[in-house]
Amino acid sequence: MNEYCFEDIQIGKTESFQKKITVEMENSFREITGDTNPLHWDDAFAIEVGNGKFKSHVSFGMLTASFYSTLAGKYLPGKYSLIHSIDNLSFKKPVFVGDVLTVTGTVKEKYDDLKLICVSVTVTNQDEKVVSKADMKILVQK
Amino acid sequence: MNEYCFEDIQIGKTESFQKKITVEMENSFREITGDTNPLHWDDAFAIEVGNGKFKSHVSFGMLTASFYSTLAGKYLPGKYSLIHSIDNLSFKKPVFVGDVLTVTGTVKEKYDDLKLICVSVTVTNQDEKVVSKADMKILVQK
Repeated sequence: MNEYCFEDIQIGKTESFQKKITVEMENSFREITGDTNPLHWDDAFAIEVGNGKFKSHVSFGMLTASFYSTLAGKYLPGKYSLIHSIDNLSFKKPVFVGDVLTVTGTVKEKYDDLKLICVSVTVTNQDEKVVSKADMKILVQK
Repeated sequence: MNEYCFEDIQIGKTESFQKKITVEMENSFREITGDTNPLHWDDAFAIEVGNGKFKSHVSFGMLTASFYSTLAGKYLPGKYSLIHSIDNLSFKKPVFVGDVLTVTGTVKEKYDDLKLICVSVTVTNQDEKVVSKADMKILVQK
């Protein structure tokens, strides 16, 4: 886990990690949230409702978004992170079981008086397609 | 699970549900995401780093945000939901184990050509304090 303090972080700093989507992750996410929507487990329903856009059930968008927590909490800035807000969070392409996601964050702005950093985050799949993007504001508590 | 079609949904429509935060939810979320940040499990660290703001470890912000998935997927619109994007997602107050969160969504806009609804979401705790807010754009696939 990184332990960057506010002073350690320069504009342009980038951190990145990978996560493979599994059925077990989806099942755990469903249990936590109670979101039993069939789009996220019923292949036939997903294929029908998606009108050919989906090859199987689609992973929860908010499961992909949960990796924004990991980016802030482990990588950028790591230990002294406190997520303040997220803007422009979008889901560009569907994510499926077996996809290997690369989550990359780059520092775009620093607000010295608040010890706040603005991190632009992109999540790509194994085909280098962007599946999700967002701008996070993160307080650095040291 | 609600099964609202786009035509069923009027501006002003509101849906709401409750979730109690447990240590088991936090542990599952940590396992899914790999976010092992001590703010979310180490009471002493959270109290120290929070400078008196936190009474114990703080629940993951993105765990609270994961209930936005539940709101869309089970309640508004329910079965035919596909989350498109989320704006202005903010974390206003810390959430702790044992907190009972009320997630409320209200339809603010409808885009007929895209079958898209804009839902304003507020998450309050048992003291009726807002802990998180966001604006979600959701495609209604029927």
